[in-house]
Amino acid sequence: MTTPPAAPPSPTSIAESVRPLVEALVADAARLRLAVSSGPLGARIVDAGIAVPGGIEAGRRIAEICMGGRGRVALTPSDRFSPWSTLVSVSSEDPVMACLASQYAGWSLAAGDFFALGSGPGRAVACVEPLFAELGYADKADTVTLVLETAQTPPEAVVAEIAARSGVPPQAVTLILTPTASLAGTVQIVARTLEVALHKAHALHFPLARIVDGLASAPLPPPAPDFLAAMGRTNDAVLYGGDVHLFVSGPAEAARDLSARLPSGTSRDHGRPFAEVFAAYGCDFYQVDPLLFSPARVTVSALEHGASFTAGSFAPDLVARSFGG
Amino acid sequence: MTTPPAAPPSPTSIAESVRPLVEALVADAARLRLAVSSGPLGARIVDAGIAVPGGIEAGRRIAEICMGGRGRVALTPSDRFSPWSTLVSVSSEDPVMACLASQYAGWSLAAGDFFALGSGPGRAVACVEPLFAELGYADKADTVTLVLETAQTPPEAVVAEIAARSGVPPQAVTLILTPTASLAGTVQIVARTLEVALHKAHALHFPLARIVDGLASAPLPPPAPDFLAAMGRTNDAVLYGGDVHLFVSGPAEAARDLSARLPSGTSRDHGRPFAEVFAAYGCDFYQVDPLLFSPARVTVSALEHGASFTAGSFAPDLVARSFGG
Amino acid sequence: MTTPPAAPPSPTSIAESVRPLVEALVADAARLRLAVSSGPLGARIVDAGIAVPGGIEAGRRIAEICMGGRGRVALTPSDRFSPWSTLVSVSSEDPVMACLASQYAGWSLAAGDFFALGSGPGRAVACVEPLFAELGYADKADTVTLVLETAQTPPEAVVAEIAARSGVPPQAVTLILTPTASLAGTVQIVARTLEVALHKAHALHFPLARIVDGLASAPLPPPAPDFLAAMGRTNDAVLYGGDVHLFVSGPAEAARDLSARLPSGTSRDHGRPFAEVFAAYGCDFYQVDPLLFSPARVTVSALEHGASFTAGSFAPDLVARSFGG
Repeated sequence: MTTPPAAPPSPTSIAESVRPLVEALVADAARLRLAVSSGPLGARIVDAGIAVPGGIEAGRRIAEICMGGRGRVALTPSDRFSPWSTLVSVSSEDPVMACLASQYAGWSLAAGDFFALGSGPGRAVACVEPLFAELGYADKADTVTLVLETAQTPPEAVVAEIAARSGVPPQAVTLILTPTASLAGTVQIVARTLEVALHKAHALHFPLARIVDGLASAPLPPPAPDFLAAMGRTNDAVLYGGDVHLFVSGPAEAARDLSARLPSGTSRDHGRPFAEVFAAYGCDFYQVDPLLFSPARVTVSALEHGASFTAGSFAPDLVARSFGG
Repeated sequence: MTTPPAAPPSPTSIAESVRPLVEALVADAARLRLAVSSGPLGARIVDAGIAVPGGIEAGRRIAEICMGGRGRVALTPSDRFSPWSTLVSVSSEDPVMACLASQYAGWSLAAGDFFALGSGPGRAVACVEPLFAELGYADKADTVTLVLETAQTPPEAVVAEIAARSGVPPQAVTLILTPTASLAGTVQIVARTLEVALHKAHALHFPLARIVDGLASAPLPPPAPDFLAAMGRTNDAVLYGGDVHLFVSGPAEAARDLSARLPSGTSRDHGRPFAEVFAAYGCDFYQVDPLLFSPARVTVSALEHGASFTAGSFAPDLVARSFGG
Repeated sequence: MTTPPAAPPSPTSIAESVRPLVEALVADAARLRLAVSSGPLGARIVDAGIAVPGGIEAGRRIAEICMGGRGRVALTPSDRFSPWSTLVSVSSEDPVMACLASQYAGWSLAAGDFFALGSGPGRAVACVEPLFAELGYADKADTVTLVLETAQTPPEAVVAEIAARSGVPPQAVTLILTPTASLAGTVQIVARTLEVALHKAHALHFPLARIVDGLASAPLPPPAPDFLAAMGRTNDAVLYGGDVHLFVSGPAEAARDLSARLPSGTSRDHGRPFAEVFAAYGCDFYQVDPLLFSPARVTVSALEHGASFTAGSFAPDLVARSFGG
């Protein structure tokens, strides 16, 4: 661990707001059934479901870390998709910072046969992605935390890259590993419902500065037996069961347009469980319509106008097929 | 800021229980997109939606401050008023203290053309309202916090009055400003569902000491474009979507009577969005039937008898007209 | 209070994880309307509904203490059993530890005409019950906390027994007393929905080590006027309104079998409010079919297989008869 910075970062630093959550996760690791170890080059590795079971509460807390400490994730009983009786709900006081500057899995980390997408607060320190220039945000920190959706410990080369890009020694890097098919992985992926909406709004060129607030929910799927099935279910939870409410400034017409274009139902690939869509494209992720990745139902409220626009709808039959299959 | 008191207040002091919440709000102001400044006479002003956006989470935390730290406010996904998918739920371990001694907007603060109703924990220190003699409660504190539903910074005369009535210097006054049409304002008003029931129970002369516990919820409306529309929607959330469960001691017959008289449906003005009612009375608030201000549905459980009485019902069509209009 | 231990217990010690919750409850006792006193032999007695009203939030916090700090209890608005609009939801990162090593009311404490079942974290220190050998868990602590469902302060002999079995002086014992018919008692009993499922899974010889995670909910009943009626309603909340989702490892067939055998509907005594069943057996608890004590609906997800099995169903008519009666 490095020495504390001479001057504290601004109170709006994501690294600063997330640090207590990361340290609390590590302190509670044993009871959350996580394993913390010193990994490649001395990086701190938090295993959240590879050699240890992890769990739903660990996933919930990892999801809040992934949002940079700028959002809350809760598990709520609900009859929306009975008998799948738990919704993962998400809120953020600053969806752009929480979801795009932190939670989005936007940093490709590869070395040898290892590949993972890095998400979480460390992205804003490294600022490898062009997105950060658009966001106009660059964080400074003496420790960085990333969440990797992987079942493997990353090699030294990946740790070295993260450290170098972040300007910290490798020992100041914390990597939280959440396999897709683990309980913690399931929760932290489904907790991306709001992020998925933010990412698509960005892809649709909606001005991010106008997104003021956001609330979201999606059903908690049962973990799947393998990576492909788990990817299918967690995507289906969002695509067919995800609900998002965005509060935006600007013209009402733009809010209406955003609501109309956001839901997954606007995609040509909507209507089948994601695993089937993926298989139909020969498991080539880049063949899948990018517009598919969005919540089932979206409400956009135009703050200055008081008008709200809802589009899309839940597909409980597809949720049932996906989760029960 | 004044020096700490020589002897700490009783652990049941509202001022004492709310202080950590106020300081945490100020510490997190930047990330909650609030602005904290030194205002008239050195009072601490927390802008929660005038020159800054604020947000839903800020409103939730302000609502808990407004309850004097004696209650909890949560946002929960729900299908009760679909597609308005979020309920603001409220609970309090001591509804009389939380809602009447603290949360109720009972202190008229006027100077020049400024007018606002003061709510929150500082009311119990100043004890300007006759209500406090009835409650038999007077708080002591070296700092006071009020929530003002306003879009203007109050003038020096208002700060001076608050300070003088509270026996503290003006610099020891914290004023949290939540415009009615802001996100934070919307949440903190709708979080008054339980308080509205307590206030009406008091107006109906139900003995307050018999109200032991309470739970409530109401749908979160989208913020409205102006004060009048916002007042309409936040009222409609409670009048047509509010649910309250009170737990009372005393005769079962009194519990039944309370449940029968509490719901908004008992009012002659029930049945139209509040903004229409208000307009029909020429925008004269005091013409509106005071019995209207109550939750849509009320359950009262008589603790010693085990009997429960439910009256009133939700009016989802009126919620839809109000929120969507 | 005893001196702190020379070496801190392992971070997975239940006594260690629960201690901050117990001290916070005591610190907040006045505002939660609990009474803390020095009782028999100097034991610390927390009265949660005998001479003081206590309340729902006190019950929620006591329930989390009862789970040894390894689970969360929340109150959520819901329309599942309208007009009973509140669910008590429970989750635990380690259901076996939280529910069986801590929450289960397994320690019979009797002296003279006093009898109560002891539940909570102190059980794992005393390890009086054979269950702890099966669990392979024995806690060490210098202070112990038990929750007793009783309306009487236990006599010296009971305190002495607890202290002796736990290896601590009587002054290091905290006893939280929650009458069955109190608000706090009602919440802490209904918060046992997950524990009831764990206990029955154990009775059915399902290997406990395979239960990885769990979520549960049940409707909050109104407190009943006396012990028998309260026992009836709190049981009915679970038997006819309880929902449990278990996540287990091992064969899918075992998960299916567990789901089929767990719900209360498998019992010969299912179908009447519990108070009627109890009366029909002449108020002899041991005549009631032990298989009755289980949630209404159960879903078991087999983690390695991705298969989920749901059995049982809610009985809203029986919930209505029980709560409204």
